[in-house]
Amino acid sequence: MELLTTNNVWMMICTALVFFMHLGFSFLEIGLTRQKNTVNILFKNFFVITMGLLVYALGGFNLMYPGEFNGFFGFAGFGLDSAAAADLTYNEGYTYWTDFLFQGMFAATAATIVSGAVAERIKLGSFMLFALLYVGIVYPIVGSWKWGGGFLDGWGFYDFAGSTLVHSVGGWAAMVVIYFLGARIGKYGKDGKPQALPGHNLPIAAAGVLILWLGWFGFNGGSVLSADPALTSLTLVTTCLAAAAGGIGAATFALARYKNFDLTMFMNGVLGGLVGITAGADQMGPTDAIIIGLIAGIIVVLAISFMDKVKLDDPVGAVAVHLFCGMWGTLAVGLFGALKGFDQFMVQLAGVGLVGAFCVISTLILVLIVKAVAGLRVSEEEELKGLDSSEHGMDAYADFRLNQH
Amino acid sequence: MELLTTNNVWMMICTALVFFMHLGFSFLEIGLTRQKNTVNILFKNFFVITMGLLVYALGGFNLMYPGEFNGFFGFAGFGLDSAAAADLTYNEGYTYWTDFLFQGMFAATAATIVSGAVAERIKLGSFMLFALLYVGIVYPIVGSWKWGGGFLDGWGFYDFAGSTLVHSVGGWAAMVVIYFLGARIGKYGKDGKPQALPGHNLPIAAAGVLILWLGWFGFNGGSVLSADPALTSLTLVTTCLAAAAGGIGAATFALARYKNFDLTMFMNGVLGGLVGITAGADQMGPTDAIIIGLIAGIIVVLAISFMDKVKLDDPVGAVAVHLFCGMWGTLAVGLFGALKGFDQFMVQLAGVGLVGAFCVISTLILVLIVKAVAGLRVSEEEELKGLDSSEHGMDAYADFRLNQH
Amino acid sequence: MELLTTNNVWMMICTALVFFMHLGFSFLEIGLTRQKNTVNILFKNFFVITMGLLVYALGGFNLMYPGEFNGFFGFAGFGLDSAAAADLTYNEGYTYWTDFLFQGMFAATAATIVSGAVAERIKLGSFMLFALLYVGIVYPIVGSWKWGGGFLDGWGFYDFAGSTLVHSVGGWAAMVVIYFLGARIGKYGKDGKPQALPGHNLPIAAAGVLILWLGWFGFNGGSVLSADPALTSLTLVTTCLAAAAGGIGAATFALARYKNFDLTMFMNGVLGGLVGITAGADQMGPTDAIIIGLIAGIIVVLAISFMDKVKLDDPVGAVAVHLFCGMWGTLAVGLFGALKGFDQFMVQLAGVGLVGAFCVISTLILVLIVKAVAGLRVSEEEELKGLDSSEHGMDAYADFRLNQH
Repeated sequence: MELLTTNNVWMMICTALVFFMHLGFSFLEIGLTRQKNTVNILFKNFFVITMGLLVYALGGFNLMYPGEFNGFFGFAGFGLDSAAAADLTYNEGYTYWTDFLFQGMFAATAATIVSGAVAERIKLGSFMLFALLYVGIVYPIVGSWKWGGGFLDGWGFYDFAGSTLVHSVGGWAAMVVIYFLGARIGKYGKDGKPQALPGHNLPIAAAGVLILWLGWFGFNGGSVLSADPALTSLTLVTTCLAAAAGGIGAATFALARYKNFDLTMFMNGVLGGLVGITAGADQMGPTDAIIIGLIAGIIVVLAISFMDKVKLDDPVGAVAVHLFCGMWGTLAVGLFGALKGFDQFMVQLAGVGLVGAFCVISTLILVLIVKAVAGLRVSEEEELKGLDSSEHGMDAYADFRLNQH
Repeated sequence: MELLTTNNVWMMICTALVFFMHLGFSFLEIGLTRQKNTVNILFKNFFVITMGLLVYALGGFNLMYPGEFNGFFGFAGFGLDSAAAADLTYNEGYTYWTDFLFQGMFAATAATIVSGAVAERIKLGSFMLFALLYVGIVYPIVGSWKWGGGFLDGWGFYDFAGSTLVHSVGGWAAMVVIYFLGARIGKYGKDGKPQALPGHNLPIAAAGVLILWLGWFGFNGGSVLSADPALTSLTLVTTCLAAAAGGIGAATFALARYKNFDLTMFMNGVLGGLVGITAGADQMGPTDAIIIGLIAGIIVVLAISFMDKVKLDDPVGAVAVHLFCGMWGTLAVGLFGALKGFDQFMVQLAGVGLVGAFCVISTLILVLIVKAVAGLRVSEEEELKGLDSSEHGMDAYADFRLNQH
Repeated sequence: MELLTTNNVWMMICTALVFFMHLGFSFLEIGLTRQKNTVNILFKNFFVITMGLLVYALGGFNLMYPGEFNGFFGFAGFGLDSAAAADLTYNEGYTYWTDFLFQGMFAATAATIVSGAVAERIKLGSFMLFALLYVGIVYPIVGSWKWGGGFLDGWGFYDFAGSTLVHSVGGWAAMVVIYFLGARIGKYGKDGKPQALPGHNLPIAAAGVLILWLGWFGFNGGSVLSADPALTSLTLVTTCLAAAAGGIGAATFALARYKNFDLTMFMNGVLGGLVGITAGADQMGPTDAIIIGLIAGIIVVLAISFMDKVKLDDPVGAVAVHLFCGMWGTLAVGLFGALKGFDQFMVQLAGVGLVGAFCVISTLILVLIVKAVAGLRVSEEEELKGLDSSEHGMDAYADFRLNQH
């Protein structure tokens, strides 16, 4: 009982920290985009966290943790389970309520990842519909395959805190949706070369990264699912070292490649390191964590450049960070640390591929539905004017004279 | 002893989170007002948290928790009690020091609520004097009636974390002071119609809301007064679901009423849901919490519109959120959850009414004293120029060219 | 084992809070400086936290905690110690991993203090080199004298959480480096009088202060090195009361001296109170804490004025806050609280002096090396244009029309 109390305290704090990541994502997304779309992005973020929690309570939680099931798809029914909630032997590490809330905060994260990538040109209503379905259905089904005890879990697939199950799930959707959306007006010049559309508030973006790093103490630390002192503290160390190495890796690589001390690469490198360590944070030593982070940092720089080349316009680098580093981190479990080995690597690869295929197909279907129902993209006029004006009739910074571009 | 350690850890973390709400309030208030009054609002917020803690240490704590008393008014003397502090059997859930600090952070909150409503035209010195007296005397006396074991507690009045004892106490004062202050210049046109005076930094305001939500993990979670796993985790779930439902309720209702995706309504709806669940967060199930939150969200929209109609100018919607939703949440304890019933409802109603009467009368007296001593409102010239210039000689954003309005 | 779990939970949370102080420092520094150097400051802050952690893992931790040593200098070897990490009897209060990470977050703090003082004219590469060496070598050696069990510890020197070992260590370096750097262009008029170069974002700066205060819950609370309920909660109370008194002290003194409600003095007063209580936070009663804080607040105002007079240009007041109040807090351990007494005072004085001498000499050497290798100061043209443009080719606020000055 006393241990449950301690464990549950830790899990509740981690839940609070993961919740706080929604401020981190909001700050990152608005900071790296233009001021004329700021209110719109904030509205989307508020929608994702509020509707996400409600949908997860309504059915997502029971879709992700269906109890005994066929390993592919199960559903334990609508609503939350008061009987389980009353049972303090539910788990040694947390109560039923804590379990629901911790998982609910994770669920909303996946949709938030999409939000950044599609910013500045998606129709608000269309995004809301898509996010609702993705958080309510796709994310929990994929999660059930591993964390719900499904077939990937049976195969020995390992994904500690969700490099694949959370970050890549968000990243795949982001990539497919931006393919259908197309690039923002002005992103590619007449010669096809990518143009910089600089973010309008880098202090806010930088704060977002540090808040996300803080949130990761809970994201990874809470994924131990207890306050086990050895495992939780190891996890925090690998998480922080990978973040540090990711930042240094990206900043150094960007310096060598572009001869510039590039703050946004530094920031995205930190995030890449965090995503990269997430799959194996409890299985690595400090040196493993630093190597994984360094490579993740380099991947971020390369992936952002790759996305530019194939003309997938991702204003905040969400695909580079969450999809590419999510895949890297998942595979790294087979290459470093306690689980490394050829068989493990192949299982990790299979997991990455199957989750990717399912997410791409699901997103395709959802995008086609949403497009048919409501359309995807705002009009050219609305985009140029900014979504704050056209969708909300509000200015983010009403007292400032702005340089619209 | 081990359980005390765990409980006390939880309570200290909750204390830290409630402290952090002062950043949330600061951000919300400056974000929703004009840039020319930003330094002034920050100064007020710094004053409230610093002087609030000192005054609470000097006498407020002993006024709120007087020990054995007549149920209406008691005082255990000035200063803190080293003897109680040395006694580790003081309480199973926390030490004396933790008790003081947790309650001290609550105390400062009540005055901060007033700060937002009176922004942009109150004299700084007058606000400071009022806040000092309100936090030092009125708030602790009302608190003693219930949390200090006074007559409302004897009647069976229930207010878990302070929908009435904190939020309405702040909200009533806010309403009375803005009645005496009058509306900001330009708030009502010549035809008497309310004009929008848009906030100057919505990202900061939105961050304020998310920080407040985070703080509420501690505000409500800590009000369990121990780390009891079942109660604390239930409380966090009801708190978060009510916040989510409040936001969705307000945004949807505002969409239906004004045909607009209104971010500030969404934000205030989240806060309304949080205030609404606060009185009964440990007595509700998830469905109760969602219903209470949804209704609170609708109340926020209606109350903001009502305040505009009766020409009480509340720049940040503090009265709508803290007073109206505070009353709603307190009454909801008689309508939903474990305590629901006619008798409970009537006691809740009596509590709402008595606290309201006491706060209104106290505020009246304090306002008349402050008005006589120092005046209430800055001059028209100072208001137009902005309080940052007239009271502080500083610009909040010195390097930016501003559109004064 | 259960107690270890609880203690370790507390220590991990404190670690997270100290990490979060890096956002506080970032916000404070960019808020109090000009927009044209914002990206540069953020880049430095990201570098300090990331490289700081890596360097501390590589060698700093083992330099600071060398085990058995001669009391002046010892080194336990490169890298982290997996054997110690596997031993759960390592300490009753925390695991090896927690120990490393908590201390690593502290280490990075010292360099961040320097970052604020040297802002707006130091070469980025030169700062990075200096910070690397200072965090990697100087800070851990000084730390080993007391916290590593060295000669200052043997003498009975007391510095609970680092008024001297962290804050003064940063403050001394800051003072020496700005002496060599010289003042920013425009800081002193032709008549030699100091000119205001106002900070460009006071809301962000104020948020920084509140975030730092929050972080101090972990900085001081975690320095108990366990979750001992009596000591941790006392520490939080003295910390918060000193912060409050520091703010009130500085604001009141500045009001009396300059007839102005000065927000930045209020803010720096809060920080001064926090630095001042840090050396003895677990040894003081509430009244001691309030007196120490009040005096720290007054010291901040006087020290800022003194620095202006001797033409040491410290844009954010870092030397006033961290060096002067750090010295004051260390000496105050001999004047107030459980340890007060003449002998203790003399030991405190000796510690302040010896640490000061070592830091000044070390910084001198490092500055001369860095100057020879890479130069210290950007060109006049770069400084006038702003370091964001010359070193990063980026604008912090790309969409805003700015008033360059």
